[in-house]
This record gives sequence, structure tokens and C-alpha cells, in this order.
Amino acid sequence: MYPGSEIYGGLANSWDYGPLGVELKNNIKNLWWHKFVHGRDDVVGLDAALIMNPKVWEASGHLKEFSDPLAECQKCHARHRADQVGGVCESCGGKKFTEIKQFNLMFKTQLGPVEGNDVYLRPETAQAMFVDFKNILDTTRKAVPFGIAQVGKAFRNEITPGNFIFRTREFEQMEIEYFIKKENWQESFEHWRKEMLSWLEDIGVDLKHVHELEVPASDRAHYSKRTIDFEFDFPFGRKELYGLAYRGDFDLKNHFKEPPYRDSETGEEFWPHVIEPTWGVDRTVLAVLCSAYDDSDKNRLVLKLKPHLAPYKVAVFPLSANKPDLVKKAREVYLSLKANSYSLNPAWDDRGNVGKRYYSQDEIGTPYCVTVDYQTLEDDTVTVRDRDTTHQDRIKIDELKDYISGKINQYA
Amino acid sequence: MYPGSEIYGGLANSWDYGPLGVELKNNIKNLWWHKFVHGRDDVVGLDAALIMNPKVWEASGHLKEFSDPLAECQKCHARHRADQVGGVCESCGGKKFTEIKQFNLMFKTQLGPVEGNDVYLRPETAQAMFVDFKNILDTTRKAVPFGIAQVGKAFRNEITPGNFIFRTREFEQMEIEYFIKKENWQESFEHWRKEMLSWLEDIGVDLKHVHELEVPASDRAHYSKRTIDFEFDFPFGRKELYGLAYRGDFDLKNHFKEPPYRDSETGEEFWPHVIEPTWGVDRTVLAVLCSAYDDSDKNRLVLKLKPHLAPYKVAVFPLSANKPDLVKKAREVYLSLKANSYSLNPAWDDRGNVGKRYYSQDEIGTPYCVTVDYQTLEDDTVTVRDRDTTHQDRIKIDELKDYISGKINQYA
Repeated sequence: MYPGSEIYGGLANSWDYGPLGVELKNNIKNLWWHKFVHGRDDVVGLDAALIMNPKVWEASGHLKEFSDPLAECQKCHARHRADQVGGVCESCGGKKFTEIKQFNLMFKTQLGPVEGNDVYLRPETAQAMFVDFKNILDTTRKAVPFGIAQVGKAFRNEITPGNFIFRTREFEQMEIEYFIKKENWQESFEHWRKEMLSWLEDIGVDLKHVHELEVPASDRAHYSKRTIDFEFDFPFGRKELYGLAYRGDFDLKNHFKEPPYRDSETGEEFWPHVIEPTWGVDRTVLAVLCSAYDDSDKNRLVLKLKPHLAPYKVAVFPLSANKPDLVKKAREVYLSLKANSYSLNPAWDDRGNVGKRYYSQDEIGTPYCVTVDYQTLEDDTVTVRDRDTTHQDRIKIDELKDYISGKINQYA
Repeated sequence: MYPGSEIYGGLANSWDYGPLGVELKNNIKNLWWHKFVHGRDDVVGLDAALIMNPKVWEASGHLKEFSDPLAECQKCHARHRADQVGGVCESCGGKKFTEIKQFNLMFKTQLGPVEGNDVYLRPETAQAMFVDFKNILDTTRKAVPFGIAQVGKAFRNEITPGNFIFRTREFEQMEIEYFIKKENWQESFEHWRKEMLSWLEDIGVDLKHVHELEVPASDRAHYSKRTIDFEFDFPFGRKELYGLAYRGDFDLKNHFKEPPYRDSETGEEFWPHVIEPTWGVDRTVLAVLCSAYDDSDKNRLVLKLKPHLAPYKVAVFPLSANKPDLVKKAREVYLSLKANSYSLNPAWDDRGNVGKRYYSQDEIGTPYCVTVDYQTLEDDTVTVRDRDTTHQDRIKIDELKDYISGKINQYA
């Protein structure tokens, strides 16, 4: 990841995902979609516009209540969160502040050529699942219990972003709104709690660094009977990674006057209740990186990513870059893997010596390294070296793709 | 696709992708990434923040020049594009207009708590590839010629959006900036022209509905020696689908004072030139839908999607929904396909009769339908019906996954 717009001095803790970062992030998003949408019978996907009708935010309460209390320094006009004002302005040392005012965290912009047509960048993906609830009922054959899943950007004008990609003003969410009958909320909540733990295991986050915080009633939204924060031991402290909330029928009632659901068997109209598991994409990337980082071996640094999350599943080398016949053969192996299996996304490396190449692939988490050597020219076999054990197997080129795919599926 | 925020009267031609739409769109984006990033040796990915430092747009010229000339009705204050003002205001019938003013098409918003910190939603993905050019050189081992690819949202405050998802203010792009030596521009341009045609074939767009428009010098940007618009015969007329432009060294020179590239062998510093192929995601979805739509059979409507683009690759039915043993067996087949192959994303249907289910899967483009019947209970075989031919094969359940995967890979 690079600081966003770095050549212009960056931009307030924004980050760009480079060639390896985007692969890791995409692998995480795709795995999530496969597990929770394709892998299930009761969840469908949605991809809604980031800019919604402002009435959505009026109904949801965001326009009125999604704000931070700020005080402004009378000298330099910097604004500070009221709970962080310590008598002296951090920016200029000034000591006089204005009264505390509410600062809405939504980004406002104007739609179309006529001024005053204020719209907002969505501060969460969730509202689209409620607003589109009836569209989805009308165009699928889903019945309660079922969920709507979405992956996408959201924007919050945080006063104090920071900690690398942990808290940024532009971020990405993976979110499900799961609609249930009221009486089943505890059972469904427990189901999703376990699914979230199962997901953490899928991505290689050690559960001993995950802490379930039962949010006490005094800190919960008034409509929520139970909320859990999943916290993770980041290098900068124990911080919220994911959230799971029982939201009752609060959201649907914000957007609909009449119950938007009718039981097809009994004909009964009722208000579905909602269980909402939420995953931050960028926080997931960070937790995965922290979990995989292993410097316990003094000779090498290893990123022990789960193989299915690694940007490259395999790297291919010639034993020596100075031997044209080895390079030619290694290119053939590399290009054949690339052509026949996109999902392995093989990397090529012919710099320096093989030992250095192993170490550099270890650092970016490539689980398998294939080396073409002199024996290859005789018997069409290559060595396959395992990132974690450094153990090497000798494999026939014809069987290479299946061998590596098999190893990767074993972990997945 | 549903109108965005439909329950609130929609929002100015914004659209949400529902459960089938998001699968089709994701399949298109994933296929593109596989073809142009994973499938190649010379293109790396990027995922940059949507909000960049405003100096980016100053340097690129967007702040000054990315605008439409508008005239405002003096009576109702509606603004109209100067070239569309016909003497009478379309909104109120007023006849007096202000002078023509330039209206910038970028969405402006404010970053952070201090007012006046104007930032813009990116109007194109391209600038990030130039701004991050050196970061990417420093963290990969790519050398000219190579490309940087990105998929993501962009925003333009168009005066007159319309034609369903063809022109929307919020849209998604797939874009590559391909960096070359100046003297190779014609060869590289031709390479990318062919790649764009090859992509159209991959997604099932009939090339006889695609027209390459050589943009004449008078309509090209001053720095471009050649630009092609790929136009498609949409139901509402022949309109731009994709673009391919030779941009010279215009963009890198906007952002860097010194040549940002040095040849590792000769040590020569130079300005790489750029070939830019651009694909609209939403326009691709629309062209794919138009190409696949087939109502030539009076008995059924068929969406002849390329199988690898279909939201569901296979649907599973019991012959009759009233026979518990058939339903049980069909559920086993369905769940087994779902568990063992996410990529097939199987659908389940037990409504009405089998004929109706075939037709409803035809309409959403599902290439294969599997029916569990009485013979299944005896010999563990099922029928597999082909969407396009309606031909049925009898296949062993054990071989079903490989049979369907094989058929799909055959098309891909």
C-alpha cells in the first residue's frame, strides 16, 4: 500500500493498494462472497449506488444524528473533537475555543447542474439493503429467514483517521443484513457469531488474538438487544475489527409505513427483524497481514498467508539466469501455469540466486516456489519448495498444476 | 437492476444491481482482471482511493477544463447545456437565459472538519496510474513496456444522464495505462486494438454490431496522435462503448518534472509514452445483455449469455415438488454442487412444472438445468438440459460437476 497521492504530499491518511495489495484485498473479498453468498442457500448479493437519495439519510437518522461534537480554536480555526480538547489547541497552542457544535460525518456534494441539490456519499453500505428490500423480494424467491450481502465503499469524514489502513475516511465494507422472524433472533445471532469466527479461521487470524466484547446496554443503540464487537490485538492496541448487531425492526420501520413482508404460507404480514454482521475490508487486510507476519526465524521474514489469500500462489525460477536453456525451460513452465490456471497467478523471478528469490517470495507470502534446474532438462521434473517448511519435493511438470492446486485447496 | 433509492422516487438515473445483476457484473470484472492482469506477464493491478489530492486534478487539467458550457433560465434557474438551449426553457417555458458559464463536471466535497478543504470524486480511474507510477516502479520489477490496470468507480456530474445504465453520474471503469517507448506506439496501439476486439468476443458481443470510429485529428486531444472509439449498436442507437487512445507523454509530464523512468540496461532516462484502453463496466453489462437477448423462438425468451458470465451456471430441480423422495435427492445434488464448486453457483427451483422452470432459467441465462427424476432414484443419473439447444443428456451424479465445468471451460 502506498500513501494516496504521495507525489503531492499524500492526502489525510488515504491509501492506495499496489499490485500485491490489490491481489490480497481482492482475494479476501472474493473469498467472503464465495463463503457467504455463493456458498449459502439463503443470502443474495446487491451492489447499490454509493450516492443515494438524501431522504434515505433523513429516514435512517444519519442526517440528524451521525455527527461528532467539535470545538473550534478561535485563533487558527482548527476543529477538535470536544472530548479531546485539553485547554490548548494542538495545532497552534491557542487557548480559546468556540462552543461545541455537531459536525456531521457524511461527505456532502451536489448532484446535477442546479445548486442546492445536496446529496451524500453513503456512510455505510447497510441502508441500501433496507431501501431495496422490496425490490429484492419481488425479483427473487427468498423468504424469511434470508440475507442481503454487499461489498463496497463507504465514506466517513472522521476527525482523526490513522493507524495506517485501520481508520480511513474512505473505506470498504462487507456487510449482510439478515432478515428473520422476531422470535428467532437469539438463534440467528448465535449462528452469525459462529460464522464470523469461522471466517476468521478461514483467513488465518488466530482466535487467541480475537476478543468478543459484549457491548453493554448503556452503550448499545436503543433498538438493539445485543451487540458484539470483535476486537483484534493490532500492534497499536486492541481495537474493533468486526461488529455483530441485533437491530430489531428499527431499519425497515424507518423506511416503510406498512410491514414490507408477507408470509407466503400464512398470509400474515409482519416486520422482519434484522441481524447485521459487518466486516471492514481494510481492517481485514490489516489483521491478515499482522497475523501472517512471522519474524521468528532469524534468517528470513515470512508472510504466512493462508495459501488461497496469497497474491501469487506460486513463483517460477530458472536455477541460474545465465543459462539460456534453463531460462527457456523455466519460461515455458511459467507461461503454461499462467495460461492454464488463472487462479494460481504465478510470478516469475530470475534475479540474483535462488536463495535470495526464496526469501523475497517468503516476504510476500508466496506459498510455493518452483525451480527449473539441470535435472529438469533430463527428466522434466522440477523442485517445489514449501514456504512454511522450506521442504522441497520433486514433481513432474505435467503434474505441477494439480499438485499445487491440490495443496492450496487443502488449506482453503 | 433497480432504480437507485426507488422507494424515495429514485435519484436522477442512478441504478442498483440486484442479486442477478451483481453476479453478471462481478463475472465481467473478474474475467477482465483474469485476462488482462493474471493472464499477462506485463500488467499489474492497482486500487487507488476515489478521493485524491486536489493537486492531481490541477495538474491533469480537470479542474480547469473538465466542464460543460451551461446557460441558466432566469425564471426557474434550471441550467441547460448551451448546445441544447432552444430559446425556451424545457423546465418552465421561460425564454430568458443567463450568459453561458462553464460548469465543472467533478463532484466537489470537503475533507476533514475544517471548511474550505475542497476535494473531488475522481472523474476517471486513469490519473491514479500516473500519480502512482513511481511507487509501482519501486515496488515491482516491471520495465517498459508494461501496464497498470485498475477497476473502480468514477463520478461525473453529467447534465443529461440517461438510457438506463448507459450514462450515469456514478459509473465503473476498467482501465489500463500501458507504458511504452515512444517509437513503439503504433505497434502497441495495434496490439491493444486487437486485445479489445478479442475481449468483445470473450464476452459474446457480436463484432458485426461493433464499429471502430477513427476519431479525426480535429476531435482528438492535442497530445493524441490516434484515438479509436469502439461503438456498439445499442437499441437506442450507435453509441460509444469503449475507447482506445494514444496519449503520448502528456500525462506523466503533467505530474513529474523530470523523466520518471530510467532504462535499467542503458541507464537512459526518458518519458514513457502511453496507450490507454478504457472499458466502461456498466456499458459492458448493457452490451452483453443486448447481445445475449434472443426472442427469435416464439415459445421462449432466452438470454444467451456466454456460460462463464451467467449468474448461475446450473439450476437443479426435482421433477415434481410434491414427491418428497425426489425433492430430497435433488437437494442433495444441489447442495453437493454448491459445496464442491463455488464457481458454478447453482440455483434451486421447485416451483410449478419443469417446463416453466426451464423457461425461467432461460430468461436469466442459466446454461444448464439438472433434473432429478424417478430414474435418478434407481441409477443415480440425472438429465442435464442445454439452454441453447434444449438437448438433454443423461449424466451420472458423480460426474455432474466435471461434466458441467468442462462444458463451461469449453466456452471460456
